[in-house]
Amino acid sequence: MKLVRYGAKGAEKPGLMDGDTLRDLSAHVDDINGDMLGDAKLAELAKIDPATLPAVEGSPRIGACVGNFGKFLCIGLNYSDHAAETGAAIPEHPILFFKANSAIVGPNDDVVMPRGSAHTDWEVELGVVIGKEAKYVSKDNALDHVAGYCIVNDVSERHFQTQLTGQWTKGKSCDTFGPTGPYLVTRDEVPDPQNLAMSLDVNGKRMQTGNTATMIFSVAEIIEHLSQLFTLHPGDIITTGTPPGVGMGIKPTPVYLKKGDVMTLEIEGLGRQTQKVDQDG
Amino acid sequence: MKLVRYGAKGAEKPGLMDGDTLRDLSAHVDDINGDMLGDAKLAELAKIDPATLPAVEGSPRIGACVGNFGKFLCIGLNYSDHAAETGAAIPEHPILFFKANSAIVGPNDDVVMPRGSAHTDWEVELGVVIGKEAKYVSKDNALDHVAGYCIVNDVSERHFQTQLTGQWTKGKSCDTFGPTGPYLVTRDEVPDPQNLAMSLDVNGKRMQTGNTATMIFSVAEIIEHLSQLFTLHPGDIITTGTPPGVGMGIKPTPVYLKKGDVMTLEIEGLGRQTQKVDQDG
Repeated sequence: MKLVRYGAKGAEKPGLMDGDTLRDLSAHVDDINGDMLGDAKLAELAKIDPATLPAVEGSPRIGACVGNFGKFLCIGLNYSDHAAETGAAIPEHPILFFKANSAIVGPNDDVVMPRGSAHTDWEVELGVVIGKEAKYVSKDNALDHVAGYCIVNDVSERHFQTQLTGQWTKGKSCDTFGPTGPYLVTRDEVPDPQNLAMSLDVNGKRMQTGNTATMIFSVAEIIEHLSQLFTLHPGDIITTGTPPGVGMGIKPTPVYLKKGDVMTLEIEGLGRQTQKVDQDG
Repeated sequence: MKLVRYGAKGAEKPGLMDGDTLRDLSAHVDDINGDMLGDAKLAELAKIDPATLPAVEGSPRIGACVGNFGKFLCIGLNYSDHAAETGAAIPEHPILFFKANSAIVGPNDDVVMPRGSAHTDWEVELGVVIGKEAKYVSKDNALDHVAGYCIVNDVSERHFQTQLTGQWTKGKSCDTFGPTGPYLVTRDEVPDPQNLAMSLDVNGKRMQTGNTATMIFSVAEIIEHLSQLFTLHPGDIITTGTPPGVGMGIKPTPVYLKKGDVMTLEIEGLGRQTQKVDQDG
């Protein structure tokens, strides 16, 4: 299933893609969130004939594909070629930082650079949505705890991230720096999360090209590691790092976003995001 | 006012301290959370004669003093003497990291060290609860955005924090590593947040003694800084750093918590916390 949240920000309704048709799921669930991402409820929804659901009229805004979530966990430097591009060593364990959950927005909402920002960069990433509580799990059964997958743009202010003394989270947590969606694609439709082509264009020019096959730590290994540290709860989102091609890595001069730029992100089977860049005055 | 949440974890009810008597506030608010921490609602609650509220029978568990909150923001190395103790330089800006919101627990709940943890440490801290949305605010009016204050124990696994490659958040986010409360003391009862004595004992022995007067960045400066990066929302919690005396700083040999230890924390006017230490097997 491709689960969707649509409507005004803060008032999204649950929906389901039936081919290219968005259908209203609100007779069956209140929202797409941790309360309904377990296997039993997803199996129940999978039995519904989509044709029996009302089609949604018009072209509503699409929201982030998970509502009221707890943790927005991010893995850094998780592609060996991206680590090389930034000059960083290959990490021994997954690097973890948090994105503020207030940074999450819909997949096509504007990305708004904070006042004074001159180093805002893009990062196409595979997002993993937890469906079942995970604590001390092994990588062998880690994927059983996944509800599904989505695209995340881990938008990053590099000056805030590296020059404001300590901890990347400052450059990762700005409002609108977490476009997520358009769909939560349930894991049964993603047979191998480690073989998904991904790309990001800026103003129609290809900047990032990658494949989840080159992750340093696989989705299963990341879940195993994090679940030794703390409980992963249904609805938590883990975004798993970005392949090469970020603006910071461009030689000889890094390239950053500016007002009016348009980013387009795709991951195989997970749809497409498009964001226009704006800036707070 | 001293606002309290009491009852079983996940099913806490709102309450109010009337001297030493806990009274039930659930006829007036659903919970103590971001939805009711604005000035208008707090002023309305302040008009209630506490004697008209039902007294709560028995001695229920006390929960974290804020429910359903968004961000658990932590400032690192914010006391000059603690920075010296850990050998770190005085930071140029407030150091920010996140604690997982799944780490929050009640002020007297057990602190459970993760499996294999041998370096769990204590940190008494002043917690600041946001009452009004803050974006691009100046330090001159930053405290207008504060609903109130509370005690936080920023429990920290030092090996996870420093040895698992990158970003402190791994050692700060373990389940139960965020005892918060017992009260949210509204800001009208805390005339100067920069002059509060604080202490932490382990097994009755005084380990930390400090005063918020020696913070490097004041509460107002922290709010000013963070609000340039992202929006602070009602119910967000900022914990503002710890004074000297953590286990990691003890010479010649650091001292860490072990199963059965008891921590007692106090901050002037904000009450007391007591946690027993346990460990996952």
